[in-house]
Amino acid sequence: MIKIAVDAMGGDNAPQAVIEGVIRALDAYKDIEIQLYGDQETLNSMPNVFEDRLEKIATTEVITGEDEPVKAVRRKKDASMVVAAKAVKEGRADVILSAGNTGALLTTGLLVVGRIKGIDRPGLMPVIPTINEKSPHLILMDAGANAESKAEHLLQYAYLASHYAKNVLKINEPRVSLVNNGTEAGKGDELRKQAYELLSKAPDLNFVGNIEAKELLSGHVDIAVTDGFTGNAILKTLEGSLKSVFKLLKRTLSEGGITNKMGGLLIKPALKKMAENFDDSKKGGAVLLGVKKPVIKAHGSANDEAIYNAIRQAREIVLSRFSEEIAEFFENSAENDRQMRK
Amino acid sequence: MIKIAVDAMGGDNAPQAVIEGVIRALDAYKDIEIQLYGDQETLNSMPNVFEDRLEKIATTEVITGEDEPVKAVRRKKDASMVVAAKAVKEGRADVILSAGNTGALLTTGLLVVGRIKGIDRPGLMPVIPTINEKSPHLILMDAGANAESKAEHLLQYAYLASHYAKNVLKINEPRVSLVNNGTEAGKGDELRKQAYELLSKAPDLNFVGNIEAKELLSGHVDIAVTDGFTGNAILKTLEGSLKSVFKLLKRTLSEGGITNKMGGLLIKPALKKMAENFDDSKKGGAVLLGVKKPVIKAHGSANDEAIYNAIRQAREIVLSRFSEEIAEFFENSAENDRQMRK
Repeated sequence: MIKIAVDAMGGDNAPQAVIEGVIRALDAYKDIEIQLYGDQETLNSMPNVFEDRLEKIATTEVITGEDEPVKAVRRKKDASMVVAAKAVKEGRADVILSAGNTGALLTTGLLVVGRIKGIDRPGLMPVIPTINEKSPHLILMDAGANAESKAEHLLQYAYLASHYAKNVLKINEPRVSLVNNGTEAGKGDELRKQAYELLSKAPDLNFVGNIEAKELLSGHVDIAVTDGFTGNAILKTLEGSLKSVFKLLKRTLSEGGITNKMGGLLIKPALKKMAENFDDSKKGGAVLLGVKKPVIKAHGSANDEAIYNAIRQAREIVLSRFSEEIAEFFENSAENDRQMRK
Repeated sequence: MIKIAVDAMGGDNAPQAVIEGVIRALDAYKDIEIQLYGDQETLNSMPNVFEDRLEKIATTEVITGEDEPVKAVRRKKDASMVVAAKAVKEGRADVILSAGNTGALLTTGLLVVGRIKGIDRPGLMPVIPTINEKSPHLILMDAGANAESKAEHLLQYAYLASHYAKNVLKINEPRVSLVNNGTEAGKGDELRKQAYELLSKAPDLNFVGNIEAKELLSGHVDIAVTDGFTGNAILKTLEGSLKSVFKLLKRTLSEGGITNKMGGLLIKPALKKMAENFDDSKKGGAVLLGVKKPVIKAHGSANDEAIYNAIRQAREIVLSRFSEEIAEFFENSAENDRQMRK
């Protein structure tokens, strides 16, 4: 059985969306067991049909979107998110999922679950849909776990994301790129120049060079490595621009007279399908990579569909044995480094 | 007469698109005079109808997209871009426009036209269309002139962009925001924290706080201040995501059977109008702010429409006396600083 710890209280639509997503997932996958952490009232509202694969753990506190992450994780010892993370830390669960306060979940990952030996800074890794059917996934890392990064951290992100792409997304030799303000070597600020050096010399890494942000959705690379500040700006810009286009499209079609309305009706199914391509609720959550067990962050606005898909993803990650493999890799690297220095 | 120096050789569609844009602009605005810099053959191909308002200056060199900016500007003394900038520097023209190598044009702005006293780092400022009809412009600065920035530079960008918004776009008390990874004060890396401090204390500036990148197109602010590396990533992400959506929309409508095709035909005019909203060829070029005279960068892929609009914009900037006003403001600030320190 794959044991998934779920924070029932996190996210704008919690607990309802979480409960519905959990029920769907338990129904779809018979090899998972869900530990649901939340207040007594929420837990009471869950149906009893999955009793043998659904464990309810009552908690008395909740970390809200307004809470200051580090303070909240340290002080709210009985928060659903923190208690769920402890179950992972102590081996009672294999993975944790929350749609709650991002900063708090990252902090929980660091302080409760703990870093893999050899990793300085775990990073946040969303999988972004591209417009290329042959190469439909883009991994962006770090998408915002760390506001400041050094070149060595970017190198670690490249390894972490490569292992994820290989093990979980089953991509052979994933193409790693560095987000930069031009494609030529030597471009960018000091951080990019140093990172380019490290990446191009790194063994066991398929580094294909710099990528400009305008090419991210083209499917030419599998992984785009960047610092967390830039990654956050890219992710949010994508989110905002896609939302803006669809909003404007809707407005244009509804305000533009009978011809537009008719045309709009005809293409509605096609538009819906297209919007789904960019809908991250299909893609699961962002994964905090570099901690000992997988920590999955579903979008704050996650609906039941998004929660369901994040659970599906959690299951795949555990099945792939990604976390064990990555821990081994980094421990060996650290060991090799020590041997080299002797 | 407003004297506009135009680099005929810059951009992917040069010289044809430049020539056509220049002809349209000369036709539309009787108060402008164009100085066209390019090779003899290009100049010969221009019609003679505007002889009194069109001066042709033959140059023998061209800076290409592949040239290393600083080297090219220093060595290619007779390049169309460099000679055009000299005319501005020496007062024979009021403004320079080029669709050529961005880095080279920025370098030309710095080395040939020269910085305004009191400005450390001129920045690149595009005007981006929003989806808000009441507030249709977003000024992003710096969009990539400088790969590394300090907090003081971000403060200078805020003043430069505010003056531009007031004088050229006629926005009263433009709302200045700082691009950050969260809206609360205290968010971000060290650079953002310092910049927030400076911006919130700055006199004569309507600072409204942090903005997340997902809100940039909402029209809630007029100006988004950021470092050039992040600004470049944001601008390119926007460009790439919009292009991707329209590509996918086209594909969806053409491949989806007769219903989609019919629907597509019906809404085609509406879609075209919508795409135009995001089409930066309507918005003019990006302006290098902080140099003594306006330097305008049209998009590398600029067509005649984009060149025409960039010339319209050049004319508006000169008419607004923006450069004189900003130079005065920064010299006074520097003077005040000196007085304060005495």
